[in-house]
Amino acid sequence: MMEKILADIITIGDEILYGQIIDTNSQWISTELDKIGVSVFRKTAVGDNKEEILKILKESEQRSDIILITGGLGPTSDDITKPALAEYFNSKLVLNQEALEDVTKFFKSKGKDLSELNRQQAFLPDVCRFISNKSGTAPGMWFEKNGKILISMPGVPFEMKAMMQQEVLPKITQKFTMPVILHKMVKIVGIGESYLSEKIADWEHNLTSDIKLAYLPHLGEITLRLTATGADKEELRLQLDKEVMKLRGIIPNYIFGIDDDVLAKVVGAMLLKNKLSISSAESCTGGYLAYMLTTIPGSSEYYWGSVVAYQNVVKTNILGVEEQTINEYGAVSEQTVKEMAEGVRKKFGTDIGISSSGIAGPTGGTEEKPVGTVWIGYSDKNQTFGKKLMLGNDRDINVKLTCIAIFNMIRQTLGS
Amino acid sequence: MMEKILADIITIGDEILYGQIIDTNSQWISTELDKIGVSVFRKTAVGDNKEEILKILKESEQRSDIILITGGLGPTSDDITKPALAEYFNSKLVLNQEALEDVTKFFKSKGKDLSELNRQQAFLPDVCRFISNKSGTAPGMWFEKNGKILISMPGVPFEMKAMMQQEVLPKITQKFTMPVILHKMVKIVGIGESYLSEKIADWEHNLTSDIKLAYLPHLGEITLRLTATGADKEELRLQLDKEVMKLRGIIPNYIFGIDDDVLAKVVGAMLLKNKLSISSAESCTGGYLAYMLTTIPGSSEYYWGSVVAYQNVVKTNILGVEEQTINEYGAVSEQTVKEMAEGVRKKFGTDIGISSSGIAGPTGGTEEKPVGTVWIGYSDKNQTFGKKLMLGNDRDINVKLTCIAIFNMIRQTLGS
Repeated sequence: MMEKILADIITIGDEILYGQIIDTNSQWISTELDKIGVSVFRKTAVGDNKEEILKILKESEQRSDIILITGGLGPTSDDITKPALAEYFNSKLVLNQEALEDVTKFFKSKGKDLSELNRQQAFLPDVCRFISNKSGTAPGMWFEKNGKILISMPGVPFEMKAMMQQEVLPKITQKFTMPVILHKMVKIVGIGESYLSEKIADWEHNLTSDIKLAYLPHLGEITLRLTATGADKEELRLQLDKEVMKLRGIIPNYIFGIDDDVLAKVVGAMLLKNKLSISSAESCTGGYLAYMLTTIPGSSEYYWGSVVAYQNVVKTNILGVEEQTINEYGAVSEQTVKEMAEGVRKKFGTDIGISSSGIAGPTGGTEEKPVGTVWIGYSDKNQTFGKKLMLGNDRDINVKLTCIAIFNMIRQTLGS
Repeated sequence: MMEKILADIITIGDEILYGQIIDTNSQWISTELDKIGVSVFRKTAVGDNKEEILKILKESEQRSDIILITGGLGPTSDDITKPALAEYFNSKLVLNQEALEDVTKFFKSKGKDLSELNRQQAFLPDVCRFISNKSGTAPGMWFEKNGKILISMPGVPFEMKAMMQQEVLPKITQKFTMPVILHKMVKIVGIGESYLSEKIADWEHNLTSDIKLAYLPHLGEITLRLTATGADKEELRLQLDKEVMKLRGIIPNYIFGIDDDVLAKVVGAMLLKNKLSISSAESCTGGYLAYMLTTIPGSSEYYWGSVVAYQNVVKTNILGVEEQTINEYGAVSEQTVKEMAEGVRKKFGTDIGISSSGIAGPTGGTEEKPVGTVWIGYSDKNQTFGKKLMLGNDRDINVKLTCIAIFNMIRQTLGS
């Protein structure tokens, strides 16, 4: 049995201790380490306080193989992670040429000159290896001492994530011998956690002991994570594939993808394959549907655009919804979303039109149509229909759940 | 000078270390403690592991006056916080009558009988005081030892929050004499961290020692947090106000709000105050601008809607951009965003029209217009203009930074 590789995560910053920001970094780092077989042993948050930083470094070094630090690397004087690290490793800050080139290039790409303050960021402890930051100005640092590794990264989440993925995780994987751990993510939409759990109970019960199952629910979707641990990569891969195949037999309609598949992307690929163009008419989703569609690179191949109709006058004047329809049935109705979907399809000249109209909340509900009542619409040359959703009280969650339901509606309509 | 009251927060649970859930409890607890003048000194997350729990309790006791623990109080065998606490305090678990009555009442209110597993939850270490849990079955525990206080609470957020508000915070306030701590957040947009820091260096240098300054940067915005500590609340408030006034004198154009102000909301309030309606024509922001505008409750008072024109044919057919303009200058150009802004303003009949068109990336750049080149446009009855932004390579960040730049453009245009 191989020994477990243990990690400590340290978050540095007064803003974490004061509670002014939620530390999402350490959760993300844990998940990524877990995927490559590293176990997080402790997480600690300390302030921008040199004594405290030195203390926690010493403590962490005693229990863990890898210490990952985020935060406290900004160019201003309240960021003291770097001087603390220099002191800890008994080294001095020197101008790092690679870091200087990197930060100079970063500013140049923005059409700006390097300020003195940002030039200071290229000074690193002389015993560390420089880690490039492609998304910001604070370089990362890689230290090694007595077989332990210490990595310091910026606290800005997208900078830290890029650095982890491009540099840190690959280097850690090289450095340690780890058991083979393979994950398979089965992406599911259109069914709740407890119903899903009932449907797949027998399958779950019959899983072999080297495969672990986790439910990862996330706003309208559920990911089933299958984790296989062992020595033979190829065998594990085959085992996982076999289990996914079994699952597909049990819940064929709810699985929309595997691993990195994203619902909007899966739908986009279906549209592309069928050479279909699409446009949207949004009321309660307020542009979020368009945003989700356009986050997919290449979406301009099939997505024409959207009309966000936040006033009824836009629904009638631009989308051609009949005033009488709104007066008779209301803006949140089957009739209205049908006319919106058909209207935008014709106006934009696309093959498919989709629409949303609902009471997203937190106010605006009536007895007949409470907050959370949402209609979504679909129109192509053969059919136009609406579908009702009954959601909850949270505005932002309702917007996002509506978009997921629309994607699933397109997926099921094209798939059938 | 009063001594600071220090607290340690300990989160117990394997699911935190694996990254399966984000720990939001410790952030919430920090904020509440901060309000009553208790400073959080460290936050630690450890697993469901008795050795580790005993270790962290010992460490925390040495540095802090108050130790708050969440998690590991469930009825199942992997929850071991209670036996660990009993061992730590050298005490034994006994049936606590108050706790038994409380949990019995809880089940009764749900129309259920007490199960044996839940009856076990009423066993508490004999040296602790019982804390009632109005929202669940796991009681809280209050320990005192050598002038230090240790509080154990359930990990379920709404149970913990109710317990803190109803029982724990009032008891802490009674127990300690605390200094007054006041925060003031100054919200800034349109300037980078290092430039800002240079501009306000003299002011920062002259701050009195009882005011601390922190930079909290966040995607296109920076919050300056001023923290004043002392004895007299009214005096501190005046001091903070004075410093904010000085700041306003130094960087008047960059400050968009104070404390909880949100840029989209500040802009919305300006529109409302001036009785102006607005519509948008979006290309590279792909609906996100509309989404941000519509997340503000009451935005339907001034926001009519958006046309997301992801194809040039939508720009010409729906928005009325001249085909010749696109052919001559390109879709990403000053001329095009001006025609888009003016087009949507006229089409929707609003007072103001705004627009975006850019190369959000990751691909699609040319030598002349590299990825990150974005034009934003503004039009009202008196003027129509465009503004160029040079952003980075990350598609999603570019979209969000473009929206912030548009809000700032509206703010500055209406403010002047």
